[in-house]
Amino acid sequence: MVARKLLVDIHTHVYLPRYASVLRSRSSVPFIRTDASTQEERLLILDHEPSGGRPVGPQYWDREEKLKFMDKHGIDVSVVSSANPWLDFLPASQAHALAAELNTDLEEYCSTSPPLTSNDIQVKRLYGFGLLPLVPSISTTALLEIVNQISSLPHLKGLIMGTKGVGNGLDDPALDPIWGAIERAGLVVFLHPHYGVDAKAYGEQENGHVLPLALGFPFETTIAATRLILSGVFDRFPNLRLLLAHSGGALPVLSSRLASCIDHDPLVASRLKHDARFYLGKLYLDAVAYGPEELGFVSDTIARAARYEQGSSISIKEQLNRSVGSKRMLFGTDHPFFPPLSETEKWRSVIENLEAIDAVQGWTEVDRDGVRGRNAMELFNL
Amino acid sequence: MVARKLLVDIHTHVYLPRYASVLRSRSSVPFIRTDASTQEERLLILDHEPSGGRPVGPQYWDREEKLKFMDKHGIDVSVVSSANPWLDFLPASQAHALAAELNTDLEEYCSTSPPLTSNDIQVKRLYGFGLLPLVPSISTTALLEIVNQISSLPHLKGLIMGTKGVGNGLDDPALDPIWGAIERAGLVVFLHPHYGVDAKAYGEQENGHVLPLALGFPFETTIAATRLILSGVFDRFPNLRLLLAHSGGALPVLSSRLASCIDHDPLVASRLKHDARFYLGKLYLDAVAYGPEELGFVSDTIARAARYEQGSSISIKEQLNRSVGSKRMLFGTDHPFFPPLSETEKWRSVIENLEAIDAVQGWTEVDRDGVRGRNAMELFNL
Repeated sequence: MVARKLLVDIHTHVYLPRYASVLRSRSSVPFIRTDASTQEERLLILDHEPSGGRPVGPQYWDREEKLKFMDKHGIDVSVVSSANPWLDFLPASQAHALAAELNTDLEEYCSTSPPLTSNDIQVKRLYGFGLLPLVPSISTTALLEIVNQISSLPHLKGLIMGTKGVGNGLDDPALDPIWGAIERAGLVVFLHPHYGVDAKAYGEQENGHVLPLALGFPFETTIAATRLILSGVFDRFPNLRLLLAHSGGALPVLSSRLASCIDHDPLVASRLKHDARFYLGKLYLDAVAYGPEELGFVSDTIARAARYEQGSSISIKEQLNRSVGSKRMLFGTDHPFFPPLSETEKWRSVIENLEAIDAVQGWTEVDRDGVRGRNAMELFNL
Repeated sequence: MVARKLLVDIHTHVYLPRYASVLRSRSSVPFIRTDASTQEERLLILDHEPSGGRPVGPQYWDREEKLKFMDKHGIDVSVVSSANPWLDFLPASQAHALAAELNTDLEEYCSTSPPLTSNDIQVKRLYGFGLLPLVPSISTTALLEIVNQISSLPHLKGLIMGTKGVGNGLDDPALDPIWGAIERAGLVVFLHPHYGVDAKAYGEQENGHVLPLALGFPFETTIAATRLILSGVFDRFPNLRLLLAHSGGALPVLSSRLASCIDHDPLVASRLKHDARFYLGKLYLDAVAYGPEELGFVSDTIARAARYEQGSSISIKEQLNRSVGSKRMLFGTDHPFFPPLSETEKWRSVIENLEAIDAVQGWTEVDRDGVRGRNAMELFNL
């Protein structure tokens, strides 16, 4: 199988030209401003951005730059998603219209991308995650219409979303029809952070972006995924395919504590069919954790999920098979974020994630090939 | 060595009678109120406590109850600490006076405890972590005075603290003299959460205490420990012995992401002597994570620290020795929190942590004995 050796990037972002234009038209976050002295464009997506925002250029919107980055790093296929904060800042009608347009734009971005050469399978270099207009006051009808649009666009294989839902988070019962439609359409939901947690927690010392990016982002993902578990979404929609950014953040390492806290709360415990750790085995996780021990552990938390299915008799002393967990983990780069600080052959942030996959103890070469590409080809049915 | 087989609980709390009296005198959190109809006392330590607070009784303040709990679970020695929120809510002068009194109380609580029987070493059943009056406007002199008091009390082996410092967190440069004094005195700092993160992140669905306890507590510890690392405290005080509650929360699983984010921020990167992951090898972590995979992974993040020392040539592909990490991990129960919901022989929360230690793949029996007791006996020089 030639497909076994593909490198597929499932965590790679774009600000489509139409979206970048919207950002340029704004003067509060998120927006793009042009520095008066250098004429350089700068992107501000978070409140309190240090140093006047990060420099942005064609790597954020130009497809040729995405393909050049892919070629430089040996990436065969990318499943591209709009970067945060998506449409969160727009009123419902504008978000609805723009979602539809951006999904069409992304379909064209992908469908007109070159085919993969020197391979015997029929596949393009680019596929995409669409966008839903998940903003307050949007109607369920409008959301379902866009789910239908995405599932009708052949190069869109899922959709990316943040954690706000229609204003009350992803455990909002109002989203049940949306989860149902996404499940039926077989679309993959890529859950990605943007807001972090209250920045007051980071204190007054100057640490640049380090705390919100290193901790706040994964904390936000962890809270959102935990709220989904606690709300019973995975019991009601057992075939929902949810892909968590940044290897699920802190959810894997806090999942046994979570299970213990649930056990001690009869109201929550009685609501769920299984121990909380069971639901981690239903997730897909990117392999964007920058270290081999993290990836191995995350893989273990997937592999052990069967132990926590209601009625299971698997002992916690039974040796886990890490290979089981690897099948739900997928390589990603977070491009175009985390660019190198100086001109280099390859991006350190990419190399670290590839080296981490290569160094996980207990994964076979077949497992590593799966994480690097085969799992994505199967998940997205490419 | 008989000492190898001791079970030592280093995460076990008390509200000393003097402290409980203070809580009874108050009417806003933290406080203890008496339910008018049942005459039962209830404790409210967090804002928005569900169900009118948790029932409290002698297990929170009566030493006999602590010893009974220890006997029931085969715990030989406990290193007891005041429970959160300590003195955080008091004005400086009152916090200063009460810290001194509570430290004397705790010394007596420990020094008059029974000796360990059927053992050939001279050791009491109870030792303690003292309290510093870490509140806004406290003078450095007052804090140093209490550090000296604690180090003069023979049964107090360290001190417990929250994450607020004197109002600006633990990365506040004003605390450097305190870290220096603690380091010189050889006291162990037990870092414990209380505040969590902004509860708005948890949404509107009813999930009881689950989100703040399962996620908020470890997030707070993670942020505080990360801020300490970023501030260079471990470079300036290399012999400081810091014990993190709840196995370090999310710090282990986010430490490679943290290192990557630091690499991309020259200001922060240039401030530190080592890769962020090096500093995890300087920490002590309780083994209160409720699952064997968590403990094994946390152990790995300690074991790999040497790889991340500046100038190290250890490859990430080199097999780790989990035993190395086990030496800095210590059994704990979190008693009297997480009591069983119904009358049982033993507490499930305790059993889960013991079973987790027993089931970690790759730890030897000697490692497990270390985590259960020997590491604590050595760390606290008992």
